[in-house]
Amino acid sequence: MGLAIISPGKNMDAWISNFQSLDPSIPIQVYPDIQDPLSVEAALLWNHPPGILLEFPNLKLICSMGAGVDHILKDPQLPEHTPITRIVDEKLTWSMTNYVVMGVLNHHRQLVRYQQQQREKRWDMSSPEIEVSIGVLGVGALGNDIVDKLSYMGFKVSGFGKSPKIMSYPYYFGSQLDDFLQQINVLVCMLPLTAETEGYLNLELFKKCNPGTYLINVARGKHLNEQELLVALERGYISGALLDVFHVEPLPSNHPFWEEERIMMTPHIASVTNPNAAAPQILENFRRMKMSQPLINQINRIKGY
Amino acid sequence: MGLAIISPGKNMDAWISNFQSLDPSIPIQVYPDIQDPLSVEAALLWNHPPGILLEFPNLKLICSMGAGVDHILKDPQLPEHTPITRIVDEKLTWSMTNYVVMGVLNHHRQLVRYQQQQREKRWDMSSPEIEVSIGVLGVGALGNDIVDKLSYMGFKVSGFGKSPKIMSYPYYFGSQLDDFLQQINVLVCMLPLTAETEGYLNLELFKKCNPGTYLINVARGKHLNEQELLVALERGYISGALLDVFHVEPLPSNHPFWEEERIMMTPHIASVTNPNAAAPQILENFRRMKMSQPLINQINRIKGY
Repeated sequence: MGLAIISPGKNMDAWISNFQSLDPSIPIQVYPDIQDPLSVEAALLWNHPPGILLEFPNLKLICSMGAGVDHILKDPQLPEHTPITRIVDEKLTWSMTNYVVMGVLNHHRQLVRYQQQQREKRWDMSSPEIEVSIGVLGVGALGNDIVDKLSYMGFKVSGFGKSPKIMSYPYYFGSQLDDFLQQINVLVCMLPLTAETEGYLNLELFKKCNPGTYLINVARGKHLNEQELLVALERGYISGALLDVFHVEPLPSNHPFWEEERIMMTPHIASVTNPNAAAPQILENFRRMKMSQPLINQINRIKGY
Repeated sequence: MGLAIISPGKNMDAWISNFQSLDPSIPIQVYPDIQDPLSVEAALLWNHPPGILLEFPNLKLICSMGAGVDHILKDPQLPEHTPITRIVDEKLTWSMTNYVVMGVLNHHRQLVRYQQQQREKRWDMSSPEIEVSIGVLGVGALGNDIVDKLSYMGFKVSGFGKSPKIMSYPYYFGSQLDDFLQQINVLVCMLPLTAETEGYLNLELFKKCNPGTYLINVARGKHLNEQELLVALERGYISGALLDVFHVEPLPSNHPFWEEERIMMTPHIASVTNPNAAAPQILENFRRMKMSQPLINQINRIKGY
């Protein structure tokens, strides 16, 4: 009884070799080549075809290949009672934080302006820094690490979340969104994607920001209303954005973001799961599932993360 | 008896208003409008005309307007025994560190590659990170802060200096330069400019680097042999550079760096002295000079910093 890997279009060699070197006794089948659906007890998923899990009557464990599980929960035919786990990996956190700090510093130090000056062979020393105050929307494990690193570097950072929490930094929650937005001029979205947070970054929110606020979205494309971001840029609510995630990925070639100079984009690479770190977690949960022990990094389906 | 400010071509209004609000009793004369050279007891300098200090027979204190004093020491007619002070300012350190961390992260996360992909509307998720190991040449107050912040962020960092020191991180000195360069692939120059360090970043050093090492120079233009950097880029010893300082500033419009895509440039803005923080230090030393008390942040002329 073994593991099915279902991640259409991605090369799974690194995952397979990791699993095999860690425990060669566990049979692995890789989608679409699943010959023996009855033997599948655990499924490792990234953007699986909806409904496919119904083909595995003995499924006892669903594992996300990344930190997020929205790609799993959106399946309307998801087995109702199978536990779902996600990857928690220091390296994922490390990469995410470095990416966000890079975005904050490039805005603070006006990198794009200096690149433009270089193209124009222009030497302009005036106003070398934009004063920034950073707000992190969503302060779970990843968001908190961003707050920690930016604070250590001496930046002003605030956090915002759904529920009250005692934090070592200015923290806003629930109905305090407007107060939070008034404190900041760099907004970092680290929310989990749930029904509540889909489309959270929209024109209504952008209007409440300090004019010229800079946006960084490294969570999920669906947090952002892409059309309304263009309006917010046009109206000056938002001065620019660094985006790693999009509604449709790869971003279609006719998408207006490609040519929008105020938007800097990367192809969903802010934080990429490292199979070396993640494979042992999957196997540990496989072992726990077999022994009916509590799983690690299991998510709460109601909360959605 | 008062202060002369000698900083040709720069606007000194912010300095003057700071001095006046802190102590309106001290007479201030600003070059070239120095009517009463006999009354000059202290001179605040940035790129002063060599020899001009001989016009002030009552000069008892020379203050650099920044962290470096090389612009003062290069004056062949510098009065021999007048003490020289420099600015030590947390804000200078903070800005310098942020600038260097920005440079490290942009290299690590391949910002320029992703900007190019965006222009080409290309979505390429492969190899999203370059593994970096950073080496800081010169670990005084500024260099140490860079090591501290990058270490806290989880990067591998080593330091190199002239003399043995006990440090909390891998530290190389003197004849261990080759060993140091072998450990790293991002080289940050934070050296003071002295006769010994002028031209330190040259082809001979670049040849000893790991192929493709990335260079960040935020110290002084004269640390770098500019022509030899172009050779090192051509030969692949160095893969790219972030430069804030140059032999001639502003950089002449026919300089090859402007059009070299592997070089990212800023116009000497990595760390700009803030008169609000610096003016009180100057006045404190003015007061100490008058009272014949020990000065703060006095430099050692033999060492050159």
